Parts: sequence; structure tokens; C-alpha cells
Amino acid sequence: MELPKQLSKQREAFVRDSFAAQSFMTTLGADLAEVSPGFTRIVYHRKDGLNQQHGFLHAGVATSIADSACGYAAISIVPEGCDALTIEFKTNFLRPAAGNAFEAIGKVVKAGSQIMVCHGEVWEREPSNRLIATMSATMMVMEQPAS
Amino acid sequence: MELPKQLSKQREAFVRDSFAAQSFMTTLGADLAEVSPGFTRIVYHRKDGLNQQHGFLHAGVATSIADSACGYAAISIVPEGCDALTIEFKTNFLRPAAGNAFEAIGKVVKAGSQIMVCHGEVWEREPSNRLIATMSATMMVMEQPAS
Amino acid sequence: MELPKQLSKQREAFVRDSFAAQSFMTTLGADLAEVSPGFTRIVYHRKDGLNQQHGFLHAGVATSIADSACGYAAISIVPEGCDALTIEFKTNFLRPAAGNAFEAIGKVVKAGSQIMVCHGEVWEREPSNRLIATMSATMMVMEQPAS
Amino acid sequence: MELPKQLSKQREAFVRDSFAAQSFMTTLGADLAEVSPGFTRIVYHRKDGLNQQHGFLHAGVATSIADSACGYAAISIVPEGCDALTIEFKTNFLRPAAGNAFEAIGKVVKAGSQIMVCHGEVWEREPSNRLIATMSATMMVMEQPAS
Repeated sequence: MELPKQLSKQREAFVRDSFAAQSFMTTLGADLAEVSPGFTRIVYHRKDGLNQQHGFLHAGVATSIADSACGYAAISIVPEGCDALTIEFKTNFLRPAAGNAFEAIGKVVKAGSQIMVCHGEVWEREPSNRLIATMSATMMVMEQPAS
Repeated sequence: MELPKQLSKQREAFVRDSFAAQSFMTTLGADLAEVSPGFTRIVYHRKDGLNQQHGFLHAGVATSIADSACGYAAISIVPEGCDALTIEFKTNFLRPAAGNAFEAIGKVVKAGSQIMVCHGEVWEREPSNRLIATMSATMMVMEQPAS
Repeated sequence: MELPKQLSKQREAFVRDSFAAQSFMTTLGADLAEVSPGFTRIVYHRKDGLNQQHGFLHAGVATSIADSACGYAAISIVPEGCDALTIEFKTNFLRPAAGNAFEAIGKVVKAGSQIMVCHGEVWEREPSNRLIATMSATMMVMEQPAS
Repeated sequence: MELPKQLSKQREAFVRDSFAAQSFMTTLGADLAEVSPGFTRIVYHRKDGLNQQHGFLHAGVATSIADSACGYAAISIVPEGCDALTIEFKTNFLRPAAGNAFEAIGKVVKAGSQIMVCHGEVWEREPSNRLIATMSATMMVMEQPAS
């Protein structure tokens, strides 16, 4: 699939509105910093109340942000009137998430008409700059539910 | 590995204290309903602020609860003075999580001295009674960090 | 989805013919021992030339058999004229595959019209009787290619 | 972990001897084309007897080669006297493997003392040049079994 060089204003607005409608991202405090065709970047500053038992960021939080990054990478390029839904993902955790600031990127690796395969990464940005988790995710392209 | 029939009072207290220390589970509103050797059950009633863009529970929330269910299934049987840390998991999402009440179970499938493999399930309990996600997870057994 | 209690003769023949057309299963020496709606069982006796460096069965062999078990569990219940293709799977290896005889089962966990999620297990049957690997797999239902 | 710039002659010989001892790679006809610290490349020309029901390369074959690519990427950098064993992998299949020549690469993403996380890719090289599968794999570092 040949991806467009950049998103139309309408498509970017659609992606941003949809991201803003994910109340869980708001609860976590995650922001959609960047979106281009088949790619997103989410930034995240650690808030209270999201830890596991030793004070590291819960594995589920890093995963949730990576999932949204992958999902919106897919949604940025689905056909008009469609949406993308996660059907599975796998996360490998490389290091404990001990830092204060994180960044997740999502990238479409294969864009099919029914299925999109995405690659996600979660990076700690403060105090260190290092990869803490990788994700592979499968998204299903579907007609957007009527609102 | 021969699992004990039931947990000692000390071990159950250790598991429950550790679960209570996971501030993310408190934020989500998830409760550890049951723990026995190599098994846990977590109950969860939907709260605001945890949705994806169409009002379903975010995939990351179901995953987070399943991860904690699997993690504490492992922690319930690690050697004294040890803990278990998630090194990877994969979740398959079978149906959108539209309901109000959910239950996650975690079960140790293979208990090794260094690695535990766990199986997790997330069930919607209200209004329907159906499986919405399955997880396979790998936990690493490690010395518990000194507090 | 309500599964039929048993396969029609035509469907069973279709599944068995398709399995027989998988030349890799013949090369490995794997036999389709049982097929019922949404379920298969494959038996396998170790042959030479399929090992990893320490003489255990190569992880890829156990995975290949589990993949075919899951695939034909799905194919047993796809609509007439359709087929199922693996879009992803994950395998956890619980123990080295040191034995001589193995059995893989595949089971459909969720049968959707486009996507089927399957669970697979590989058991060593000789000399021990124990689970050596688990699989979760996603199959896509598709129109069968014209021959 | 700081990786060495290149492998010692002894280490390269160790990796190549171990790969040669994987009888399954010989059966498939896969060759270890390149090995450097934390990286391998395997080339593979399609042989008869390795297909699925429509004449594409069986998903298990692509996976097996990617698993060996990842495994030897890890083995190239384990401590002296150690080996690496696959504990889990996941493969996403992006396109049917219809071609005649393939290449798998394996790369260590995180090298821990007990666990290595690897990324694998399978490329079709003839007639097209395109990515057909991606893998994420977890390897456990272990004492090499006495021979």
C-alpha cells in the first residue's frame, strides 16, 4: 500500500477527536503528540496511582499507551468511514519502567484492507533514554459504528 | 511441581498486601476476590474514565487486570523471599467489553524455578456472561527487592 | 456461535483432503487423528531430521503441528466455500520436547465471521504424558482460492 | 549491554557448529549466511514438501527459520559455556509466502543475563523483495548441557 505523505486536515482532526474520546488516555494523562500516515507518537508523564507493587509503572499502563499508539497509527490510514479495533497484541517488557516521562510510538507494518499489523515501542525519556517495551499488534478494519 | 492444597495465612497476606500496593489496581477499582496456590480471581466493576473511543472498556484495562491476575497467581507460589515480574504477555480480544462487571482469572500453567507461564481469562459477568479476552503470560521469578 | 454436534461427511472429507494437501505435515509425519466441529487432534511420532542442537524436537516443529491443529479446527467450521489462514500465533514452550510421541490439539475459542481465535496444546505422550507447549492463534476466514 | 564489534573466531565456530547440529535446519535446507554479535541472517531456498494446502510455504517453516535466526543471535552473545533456549515466540504473518527464496534475520533487542528478547523478520527475496513475517521471541540463557 502506498501511504500518503501527510494526513489531510480532516483525517488528522478525526484521529485527534477519536483519541480525545478515549477517556482512558485522559485518565492516564497521555497526549497524542504526533500523527502522520501510519504513525503516531504519544507522550506521557507519570502520574500517581498507576504503579505496580514496587513503584514501577504497571505493565498494563505501558501496554495501554502502546495499544493506543498502534491503534491510531492504523486509524490514520483506514478508508473513510472505517475504524480499527485491536484483536490481539503482545508486549515484551525489556526493563522496569522506573522513570518519569515516557513516549510510545505506533507504526503500521502491513496495511491490508481487513487487517493491519502494527509495531509499537515504549521508551523511557526521563531520566534515561531507553527502550522499555515492544509490542506487535493486529488491528481489524471495520465500518465505524453509527453514532 | 506439586502445588500446596491451600495457601498459608502468611503467604495469602503477602499476596494481598502486594496486590494492595499496586496503586494502578486501586485506580481501576479492581479487587482481589480469591487467591489459592497458582490461581487468582479479580473482580472489577466498570468505573468512568477507562474507555476507548466507542465507550467500550479500553483493551489496556482488561489486559492490566489479566496481567495482575496472572502475576499474583505466580507470586502465590514463588519461593519465600521471591517475587514475580512480567516479562511478556499476549492478549487476544474476543469481543468488545461493553458490560459493567468483569472478572479476570489467572492460573499458573507451568511453574519453573526461574520462569512461570500463566494463562489468563477476562469474563464479562454483567449483563452477559461471556469470555472477552484470553492472555498467555511469562513471569520471571526474582529475589524480592529490599524495601 | 452454535457449533454443530458433528461434522457432515462432506466437511470431514474436505478437512482431511486439505490436511493431506499440506505437504509439510507429510514431511513431518503428522497425522490428523480426529476432527470434530471446532476441534482437531494431530498425532506425531518423532522422525529423524527434526531436532534442535541438543537433540530435542525443534521448537518450530511443535509449533507447526499446533498451527495446523488450530487451522483445521477453524476450517472445520468456516462457511461453505471458505478457508482459514493463520494471521498470527504465539507459542509458549513449557518443557524441552525430548520424547518420541506427541499429540497436538487445536480448539476454536471464538468463531467470528471474519476472525477465529484458537487455542492449541502440544503434549508429549511417550515416554511421559505432559504438556510441552501452548499456542494462541488468530485465523482469518477467507474465500477459498479457486483451484 | 555493550556488544563486541565482531565475534571471536571461537565464538563464530561455536555458533556455526551448533547451527549445523540442528538437524531440522538441514532438513529444511536453511543456511546460516551471516553471524555477528547479537545478529544472524539465514538464507533459504524453497524445497519440496514444506507447503500448506494452497502451495504456500507453511507458516511453521517460516517460523522455524525465524526462531533459529533469533536463537543464534542470542547464542552469539551468551557467556562462555552457556546456551540459549526459546521460551516463547510470536509470529505475525503479513503476506502468503509464495516465493522461492527467503531470508530470515534475528536480532537481540535486549540482552539480559538470564533473558534475551529478540526480533526476527522473514523476507521473501525471489521473485519479490518483501517482508512476509515478523517475530518477537524470548530466550532463556542457560548452562550448556554437558555432552
